[in-house]
This record gives sequence, structure tokens and C-alpha cells, in this order.
Amino acid sequence: MEITFLGTGAGLPSKERNVTAITLSMLQELNEVWLFDCGEATQHQLLHTKIKPGKINKIFVSHMHGDHIYGLPGFLSSRSFQAGADRPLTIYGPEGIKSFIESALELSCTHLTYPLAIVELKEGLLFETDVIEVYVKKLVHGIPSFGFRIVEKDKPGELLVEKLKAEGIQPGPIYGKIKENPSVTLEDGNMIYRRDFIGPPKQGRTISILGDTTYQKTHEEFVKNSDLLIHEATFAADKETLAEDYFHSTNRQAAKLALDASCKQLILTHISSRYQFSEMETFLEEAKEVFSNTSVASDFSVFQL
Amino acid sequence: MEITFLGTGAGLPSKERNVTAITLSMLQELNEVWLFDCGEATQHQLLHTKIKPGKINKIFVSHMHGDHIYGLPGFLSSRSFQAGADRPLTIYGPEGIKSFIESALELSCTHLTYPLAIVELKEGLLFETDVIEVYVKKLVHGIPSFGFRIVEKDKPGELLVEKLKAEGIQPGPIYGKIKENPSVTLEDGNMIYRRDFIGPPKQGRTISILGDTTYQKTHEEFVKNSDLLIHEATFAADKETLAEDYFHSTNRQAAKLALDASCKQLILTHISSRYQFSEMETFLEEAKEVFSNTSVASDFSVFQL
Repeated sequence: MEITFLGTGAGLPSKERNVTAITLSMLQELNEVWLFDCGEATQHQLLHTKIKPGKINKIFVSHMHGDHIYGLPGFLSSRSFQAGADRPLTIYGPEGIKSFIESALELSCTHLTYPLAIVELKEGLLFETDVIEVYVKKLVHGIPSFGFRIVEKDKPGELLVEKLKAEGIQPGPIYGKIKENPSVTLEDGNMIYRRDFIGPPKQGRTISILGDTTYQKTHEEFVKNSDLLIHEATFAADKETLAEDYFHSTNRQAAKLALDASCKQLILTHISSRYQFSEMETFLEEAKEVFSNTSVASDFSVFQL
Repeated sequence: MEITFLGTGAGLPSKERNVTAITLSMLQELNEVWLFDCGEATQHQLLHTKIKPGKINKIFVSHMHGDHIYGLPGFLSSRSFQAGADRPLTIYGPEGIKSFIESALELSCTHLTYPLAIVELKEGLLFETDVIEVYVKKLVHGIPSFGFRIVEKDKPGELLVEKLKAEGIQPGPIYGKIKENPSVTLEDGNMIYRRDFIGPPKQGRTISILGDTTYQKTHEEFVKNSDLLIHEATFAADKETLAEDYFHSTNRQAAKLALDASCKQLILTHISSRYQFSEMETFLEEAKEVFSNTSVASDFSVFQL
């Protein structure tokens, strides 16, 4: 899993930070790349990465503010002219997302070359596949805003090859059968149980990506035990009242949530343009005092998980 | 008058060229800046110029294709947070422009801080002020596409001060009266005529900016005698059939129009991303063989007129 921040600013683009967009590459796991929010010029930012728009097959929109959605019509249109242009795309977003996209595409006479599905969000389990589950929670912002919890399912453990050999079971198609079935009868008539020849399951990773929100203690349960929490930090610690007034969070509030919810890592994004890059060391330090494994994202920051 | 090209590409943004937007600064003439088309990330391009969004009070949209309009919602929203945020703005564009903007702003819960008027285009005189007239013509593209002819009115000549002095008329408020009235009776009872004391009128400039279009001989009359013609040249000279098929023009076709319409200067823009910067010398040469005073615009090219 690889996370690339395409835009890490709040509200307006600046020379230092574009408006919000984050990709989650799961090429090994799913051969898919997911996009979280799509502020204006997200397609431009992608030009400076190795991520191919045709690989992006799911877009999650946290809320309908312009700095999170105005890049959608351009991204969707341009994707029709690029490699993978026939690959279906699904957009998950708040009520209104369907009207926004359909109106923009229709009025600009844009015809996509791929099937586009648009799903309006509800709280709870959004979807589940063999390897992943995505949950949605409504946050607290001026307008409906959502958070996403991406849970990779535990993978079965490795077959204990040495132990099998010691039992006189030699490598061959039988190994596949043992891995796939709870129990298998061998040629000699003996029955063996998978549980005796398989290592511990490989624990799946959990990533929580929240849209714009005020700090809420009630979000703890939703992000609990995340390997990675991506949280907005529009303001520094001294601007708690301002954050509250504008339905945003401070760096320290995000850190408190990460700490109280026993997250393993926190990345702050959606930083107000009032803060210059030169101020980021102090900005980060304020959060680290509360939760030490914190980073502040910049445009084009890449994190491996 | 100063023209700045913010985006000079066709269809898709590339690393070399953004999608279409052109500003016409008339700060001395009108204290206004006009924007022609507003492709995605136009507001981002403006960050790298000295042009203030609050100074832009008129936007002319040539046609509804995404690469000419997807930057509008973001530009309009961000303008509310910048100097001059209360200054009214008028958008002139094809049928559908009002729905596009209103839908994007409403669904993103955006409230502008300034009065916004949206005027749908018809052929003919669009508006006229003391100093300028703007005319509109429908071009030939896959969807309705328009061209704009901006005609600066001739300015009255300078007062011939030396001649007035030679007649014994000394500088003072009388000079203003002479300039403003066809005839003035002096204190000594003599009547003098303005025409005798004023130099030749200063000829106004004419700029024609055409949206996406195929080459049409019938456009000659509309752009006739322009001091500057800004014309699309999506393709090089050998791609005339392709240009026709996609309702675009070649560099040489644009040059032929400039020549036949007795324009003084031609700037080519809306260049397909199939052409690299390294090919621009040849691209320009093809046009210059037909019309020598031709330039090819790049993003951030500035031309004075």
C-alpha cells in the first residue's frame, strides 16, 4: 500500500499546496488505485507522479466543498483519453455528487469512454471484497462530510512446508489442497487438518482517512487501532476556537484522536495557507507532543504502509 | 493593453501547456482585466502572474467544452477570498453557461461575496462603453463556439497647446472647455472652434480572439483589420483533414485568415499536446510562410499592444 498526497492545502490552492487529493495505491493487493477527494488540478498533479489515471477505479469524495470536488469533471474527462480508458470507475460521495458530475459532463458535452457509477454515501459498511472492507462515518462539518475506514482482511498464514515434509508429505498439488481446505484425506487414508500445518494469519492493515471535521471524541471508535490515520489539521494548536467556528481541527486535536484511539501512525493534511513551509517544524512539534508518530504531508509526499 | 496567455494547450493539460485561458489587461484604459476562457487550474496559473483575480471583472467563454470552462467554479469561489472580493463580475458565454456555474456553486454550497451576472451570448454587438465595443460571432465547431472582436474607440486628439498660446489663449480652465465642446466663446467675445486646436484622433486598437473553430473564409469580415488576431492552431499544416474532422484549424489556416483579413499581427494558441516545444520552431515557420508577423504563445507569454 502506498499513499501519495496530491494536494495538502485547505480551501484555496497556493503556490506551496494544491487543494485536497490523496491516492491509495493497492497495485499488489488489488491492482487498483483509489483516489480520496479530487480538488481542482488533481489531474495536473498526477502528471508529476507515476500514477496512471486509468488505474484509478474508485474515487471517494468526503464532502461537497469545492476544494474537494472541482477537479472531478476534468479528471473524469481526461481519463477517457488515457491508457485504461475503458476501465470502469465508481465514485462514492455525498448526496449531490451525482448531480454535480452529471451536470458538468452533460453541459460540457463530454462523453466518457468507460462505465461510470456514482454511489451516494450512507454510514456503515460501504462495500466488501475478498480482501478489503470499507466503512463510512459521518463527521461534523458545516455540510455533510464523511470519513472512510479501509480494512484489509487478515491473510491466511503460510503453509509450514518443513513440518509437512517431516510428516513425509512431499511437495505437489496436495499442498494447494491442504491450504484451501480445513481437512484433507491423504492417499494413505490418513486425514490431516490445515490448522496443524499453517502459520499465524498475516494481519491486514487499517487506514482511516477523514474528511474535513471538527475534533470529536466520538470519532475514536471509528478510527480505533488504525495502522494509519490521515486527519485534517487546518489550524495550529492556538487556533482551537477558530477551528471550531469553521468546523475544522487543529494539529493537536488530530494528535489527541490518534492517541486516544490507539492508532499507530498519524499524517496531518489540509493545512491552511496561512502557515508557510518554514513554520511546519513547529506545527509538527505541537502534534508530536501529544502523539509522537506524526508526520505533516506536503504535496507529493509518499508513505508506504 | 497587455495579453497574458495562462493556458495554451488543447483538450488536456500537459506538463508543458495548461488548458485554455487568456487575460486582456486594460488597467490604463478601463482599470479592468478581462479573461477569455477559464480551463481547469486557471486560478493556479494566475498565482504565477501579477494579475489579481479581483481585477478580473469580465469573463468571456468561447464554448462549453471542459478544457475552456472547468476552471470557472474554482476561480469564482477563490475570488471571494481575495482583494477586490466585492467587485461585480460578469460572465458572457454560450447557452448552458448559467446552468453550469449555478449548479457547481449551489451543489458545493459556495456563496460568492460579489454580485455575479451571467449573460448568454448572441451574435452582434455584445456591449459598448465610452471607450470600447465588443462584438460576437458564432464560429464553426462541434458545438456552438464564439469569437470576440474587441474594438477600442478612437480617442480625441491632443489639444494643440502651442497654437492656442500663439493665439493668445493662455493655459487654464478654458483649455478643458475647448477640449470638451465643439465651440467656445472666449471672454473677449471671440468664438473658437475645437477642430482648429485639436490634433488628429488617436486610433483605437482592435483585437480579435476566436474560440475553437475550423478555418472559414467567412470569418475574414469579422476579424478584418485587427491589430491582433488570436487564433487556435490545434494542428500543424499537414493535418488539415484531421483539423476539419475535429472542428479545429491548422497553423497555416490561421495564418491565411490573418493575411486575407489584413490583420497586423497573429498569435497562435490551443496547440495539441502531440507537438513538443522542440517542434515549435517548425510549427511557427509553417505559419510565417503565409503571414510573417506570427507568434506561437506559450503559457505565461505576454504581449503588449
